[in-house]
Amino acid sequence: MKNIGLALVAFCCSFSVMAQRAQPGSSVDQRVNQLLSQMTLEEKVGQMTQLTLDAVLKTDAQKNAVMPHALDEQKLNEALLKYHVGSLLNVSGAAETREHWYGLISQIQKTAAKDRLKIPVLYGIDAMHGMNYTTGSTLFPQEIGMAATFNPDIAYKAAEITAYEVRASYITWNFAPVLDLGKNPLWPRIYETFGEDPYVAKTMGAAMVKGLQGNLNGKYNVAACMKHYMGYSFPLNGKDRTPAWIPDRYLREYFMPSFKAAVDAGARTVMVNSSEINGVPVHASKYLLTDVLRGELGFTGIAVTDWQDIKYLHDRHHIAATQKEAVQIAVNAGIDMSMVPYDYTFYNYLIELVHEGKVPMARINEAVKRILKVKLETGLFESSIGNPNDYPKFGSAEFTQASLQAANESITLLKNNNQILPLKKNMKVLVTGPTANTMRALNGGWSYTWQGDRSDEFAADKNTILEAIQQKVGKDNVLYEPGATFDAAQNTDDAVKAARKADAIVLCLGELSYAENPGNIDELSLPNAQIELAHELAKTGKPVILVLTEGRPRVVTEAENLSAATLMAYYSGNEGGNALANILFGDVNPSGRLPYTYPRYNNALVNYYRKNLENGNSDDAHGYHPLYEFGYGLSYTTFSYSNLHVSQPSLTASQKLTISVDVKNTGQREGKESVLLYISDLYASITPDTKRLRGFSKINLKPGESRTVSFTITPKDLAFVNDQSQLVTEPGEFKIQIADQTQTFNYEASTVPSRTGKL
Amino acid sequence: MKNIGLALVAFCCSFSVMAQRAQPGSSVDQRVNQLLSQMTLEEKVGQMTQLTLDAVLKTDAQKNAVMPHALDEQKLNEALLKYHVGSLLNVSGAAETREHWYGLISQIQKTAAKDRLKIPVLYGIDAMHGMNYTTGSTLFPQEIGMAATFNPDIAYKAAEITAYEVRASYITWNFAPVLDLGKNPLWPRIYETFGEDPYVAKTMGAAMVKGLQGNLNGKYNVAACMKHYMGYSFPLNGKDRTPAWIPDRYLREYFMPSFKAAVDAGARTVMVNSSEINGVPVHASKYLLTDVLRGELGFTGIAVTDWQDIKYLHDRHHIAATQKEAVQIAVNAGIDMSMVPYDYTFYNYLIELVHEGKVPMARINEAVKRILKVKLETGLFESSIGNPNDYPKFGSAEFTQASLQAANESITLLKNNNQILPLKKNMKVLVTGPTANTMRALNGGWSYTWQGDRSDEFAADKNTILEAIQQKVGKDNVLYEPGATFDAAQNTDDAVKAARKADAIVLCLGELSYAENPGNIDELSLPNAQIELAHELAKTGKPVILVLTEGRPRVVTEAENLSAATLMAYYSGNEGGNALANILFGDVNPSGRLPYTYPRYNNALVNYYRKNLENGNSDDAHGYHPLYEFGYGLSYTTFSYSNLHVSQPSLTASQKLTISVDVKNTGQREGKESVLLYISDLYASITPDTKRLRGFSKINLKPGESRTVSFTITPKDLAFVNDQSQLVTEPGEFKIQIADQTQTFNYEASTVPSRTGKL
Repeated sequence: MKNIGLALVAFCCSFSVMAQRAQPGSSVDQRVNQLLSQMTLEEKVGQMTQLTLDAVLKTDAQKNAVMPHALDEQKLNEALLKYHVGSLLNVSGAAETREHWYGLISQIQKTAAKDRLKIPVLYGIDAMHGMNYTTGSTLFPQEIGMAATFNPDIAYKAAEITAYEVRASYITWNFAPVLDLGKNPLWPRIYETFGEDPYVAKTMGAAMVKGLQGNLNGKYNVAACMKHYMGYSFPLNGKDRTPAWIPDRYLREYFMPSFKAAVDAGARTVMVNSSEINGVPVHASKYLLTDVLRGELGFTGIAVTDWQDIKYLHDRHHIAATQKEAVQIAVNAGIDMSMVPYDYTFYNYLIELVHEGKVPMARINEAVKRILKVKLETGLFESSIGNPNDYPKFGSAEFTQASLQAANESITLLKNNNQILPLKKNMKVLVTGPTANTMRALNGGWSYTWQGDRSDEFAADKNTILEAIQQKVGKDNVLYEPGATFDAAQNTDDAVKAARKADAIVLCLGELSYAENPGNIDELSLPNAQIELAHELAKTGKPVILVLTEGRPRVVTEAENLSAATLMAYYSGNEGGNALANILFGDVNPSGRLPYTYPRYNNALVNYYRKNLENGNSDDAHGYHPLYEFGYGLSYTTFSYSNLHVSQPSLTASQKLTISVDVKNTGQREGKESVLLYISDLYASITPDTKRLRGFSKINLKPGESRTVSFTITPKDLAFVNDQSQLVTEPGEFKIQIADQTQTFNYEASTVPSRTGKL
Repeated sequence: MKNIGLALVAFCCSFSVMAQRAQPGSSVDQRVNQLLSQMTLEEKVGQMTQLTLDAVLKTDAQKNAVMPHALDEQKLNEALLKYHVGSLLNVSGAAETREHWYGLISQIQKTAAKDRLKIPVLYGIDAMHGMNYTTGSTLFPQEIGMAATFNPDIAYKAAEITAYEVRASYITWNFAPVLDLGKNPLWPRIYETFGEDPYVAKTMGAAMVKGLQGNLNGKYNVAACMKHYMGYSFPLNGKDRTPAWIPDRYLREYFMPSFKAAVDAGARTVMVNSSEINGVPVHASKYLLTDVLRGELGFTGIAVTDWQDIKYLHDRHHIAATQKEAVQIAVNAGIDMSMVPYDYTFYNYLIELVHEGKVPMARINEAVKRILKVKLETGLFESSIGNPNDYPKFGSAEFTQASLQAANESITLLKNNNQILPLKKNMKVLVTGPTANTMRALNGGWSYTWQGDRSDEFAADKNTILEAIQQKVGKDNVLYEPGATFDAAQNTDDAVKAARKADAIVLCLGELSYAENPGNIDELSLPNAQIELAHELAKTGKPVILVLTEGRPRVVTEAENLSAATLMAYYSGNEGGNALANILFGDVNPSGRLPYTYPRYNNALVNYYRKNLENGNSDDAHGYHPLYEFGYGLSYTTFSYSNLHVSQPSLTASQKLTISVDVKNTGQREGKESVLLYISDLYASITPDTKRLRGFSKINLKPGESRTVSFTITPKDLAFVNDQSQLVTEPGEFKIQIADQTQTFNYEASTVPSRTGKL
């Protein structure tokens, strides 16, 4: 015991960092146990308590944080020394400089080191598309744009750079990636997801976890956080943090795979869904937080609440009659750490509950062990701050290039009538629309501020779409008139006049920035002012190149019907303007694919993995006919597919099937192509989806070049969740589709489908 | 045995009817068993087979039924004598005369009497709002309008008259009422439901079952059919017959009460939901069709499929790899009768399956017993046809008056700025809009034809809105210009010109007729042409009285904002025009209440029994703010509420609570008022609804008159379904709301809420 105590003294004083290799696993567990054995109940519950930075900042008489932000020593001492608080999070208001972060984190860790056991603070941050809360950082496309690349290497690289820049800000815990399935286009957090497909989400999500965590305790790695476990993304009415109806079977079929893959990829923390599923707030669900998360998925890390969510069990959800009961329910369900985030109510109630025997000590010990373990794994005991000189690549040209590459591969060409794109660089173009000249429409929310409303200030040196085009073709070739704000006409006549002088119109429509429930909407269609601008411009007869920058697929059908070409840019980050200019003028050949189904109408919201019933029938023309299909995306070259081949006509339980197809670049330009493998289960005990993505591979082909792309499939890859919540592969015929190629095979298994008809 | 045989001979020959009293229950069961013991497998499976009328009609070379419709003797013999078919259904194309029905049914029953066991045919029909398939019948408001009356006596009376007129058409089985919860406003069958509230649905539904069935074997009664068991009404995407996601808990909480109440009211048959819940087609769900329906709800009658739905288990749902497997799955799940409806595939496959041991004989016997029992209960063995002279009130003035009374109490006054209504009879009014002069907009679907598209021909003697107004105030006071069709402008200028000459504009917007999936829509908003018409008319400055006739609450916000007064007429039946004229000109004081939440926006679709989470919060203005609230409805008089009183401050498990309130007519006119009792469970183990309707009572008050209205509540009336699918009442505080009166009480129980967090 004494040795440990001494060791801790030694650790806590090494504020400058030597990145040490982690102790072997058993040693970490030993250290956790030894530490735990020394802790009082108060120290343990302190570890389970997380406060927001604002709670320990100096404030003025009106209780607003003073600028520049500075820690209030008394509040900090109270938090860390009196209450032994184990974790802090967040930024106060807006992005800080690296230097400022160094000052904050140093003071926090030095204070923590004054506490009896000198346990360092685990500081967490929402770095959602790069380290968006540090000035000068590298901002990538949001996850929805990452998904559109269909290139996990890009996601991995972006995560690696994000981790680097988070660590360069002296923080070791990133509340990313979002693993929620972007299934309902109304939801204001669609852009934070990898879109509607479970296979894309799990593939990209796992890549991002690996990119963030690396070997975890390296000085360029952070602990990842799986958000938001689970079923958060599908509120029945589309509004953020409103009730979801998700049967257990579908929770497992669609929403669970990304979390399963992230656990398997080693994700060390999870943040819990703030909302409720079927009337059960997830923060109160022992079933989800313990039985499924621990028992089935085998997750061993920290489960942290989202913002104030234990309090909300009383205030919003009304499933706890008192605040104290809320703490009891949440901790007993399996919550390890409470993002309180302003006070010590959680701490006080939890201590009372343990004394009263209402929360078992075993539950406390389990939670604290998980917290201590992550602190040890991320090297905080060895180096609680980090060395400013270790991060020379922060915001570097190399990192910027990686962001540009991501944006280049993300932006999706949806229409290109008569090959109007790429435009010639000597054409005169009108750049217009409310999203043409603002970084807000490229970065979206979680950019410098929560709502992303100050991107134009913080990313003033980055190119908007307008600026990138001006830079690409020269200002003389570019006219600019906004024509409309987000929701109102603005000198539309000037835009129309300018259009008459131009050879082509680059019309930039879409959304500005928002995050979480301030982004709720009541109509999926874009405001009428934007649609009207399209109408007025189209009347000039000049070709309209529609550029959409938006966090979710807003209905734009009328405007889109008027365009000669359409590009979807999602929120493509600080290099999004440059990437768009690259694609518009042919310096980059687009290769993005839609990671969701683009709806045509406000009240016809479907996913590609629909059921046969949703295809419509002879009585009814209202089947599946979105504006654009999931996975859709064009190139400036053309590809042909041939020779779809399966290695054998039937498959048994122990076998693997190899599926191959030849892809040829039949056009005139080098280009990248995402090869998407869909497989359909023709008949099954649960109504099968008409098709499901079961693999993808992105290749690069020179003109005339051909390549054989292969996928290996096991029966497990074809499984679905049956009526007893079991993952099964049932015997029968399956259909493969890759582009225009189709083929069938049989799966032969001895098991016969069981049918209880259970819901 | 021989006695029975002789008795049957005697019965089958008595084609003219003597309404005999049913044998006591045991005797019916004895007769069923005796009959069953004589039957071959083929005869049994024949009883389980239902064909549509078209399958046995004479057809021309193009296989179209010849006009006038006539039975094809050879087809009929084949159906009834070779295949022993037990049931027929439907009309061919359009309504028939009573005389025609007599001919058809007589020939059918006479043919059935030639079969060995002389079992009469059970003929079924969709008489959804009166006997809509017989000419000259009495058509009532559709169920949604019935719900708006908040008067179960009216629903009972309408059902009684419907039964009378169905029997007057020689038919003994009515596929009504629809007990599906009208929860999603997009669904094209909303008008067939009692709206979004479970309490309204169960109360009105039970009244209708009782009205239809009476003592069941009287000559004025028919067997009712509970439609469509269960969860059919809430497709995730709003389209008819598309997948629903309904967790078991909410299926029980919201969708089951109406079926439970109907079973308790004695409903003798049930029709099954054509769609799927959570991937399980209900026709394949042993859980729902046997475990829940029989085991829990205690239903003992016939479970019949909907149209072709066993075939669809293969063709549409893809849960059966072959048609034969579909039959096996459905019958083993608990289907008693298959609405095949054109051929003998079901019959042939089922016989094979029994021979192969894949469907047990016990299942066949069970199904056939249920079918025979209903045939006996409805008196078919005693009188298989009926006596034409027994129905002198068919289509009578007395019945018409009942329909008018229903429409009078159904139509709902939503706005009445400056008491512009009632209009004076000497005013000059413009009647305009696409729904002003057509019976289609009053009757909706299931009116003379499936789609209700020939109401103007079949109900030519009934008043459209225009005709009723002309009749009420004289043609000289009425101008008419349609201004628009359903979805296009039509001489709008003429309407505007006419408006300038008028004192008031009665603008009739809404839907024409549709039924089932042809009524699917992609946008909830009414077509823009109708909204534009409102804009143009409003510009005249003349007051716009907006009259909505529609099957579901289409978004009309822009138009509605322009109105001085708004009346919702739903589909109010053949007397709807007269009722509207009564209300517009003050001969009737309106008393309807909205049976659903009227949405303000296309993508903000909520129900009144929402959760606290859905109220919105400080970050978000997008909470619950519909155009009009469930239960909303004005009167030409005013009512005040006072003295809300509970009989005791707390309630225990064995006690009853009496809640009373004083209601006074404080205006100048006699009027009816629906007193709605809401109760909220403030905290519960499943997030509680903010309020739930737990009782209502409609009273009539003269000016100045006051009355005390009382409700008696037991703990069971406060129950909800917990996370173990159990109906429980948890201890805690409850809040009562009646109009502007509120009061709380405590429920004290020894049980503590259990929380597994199970989904």
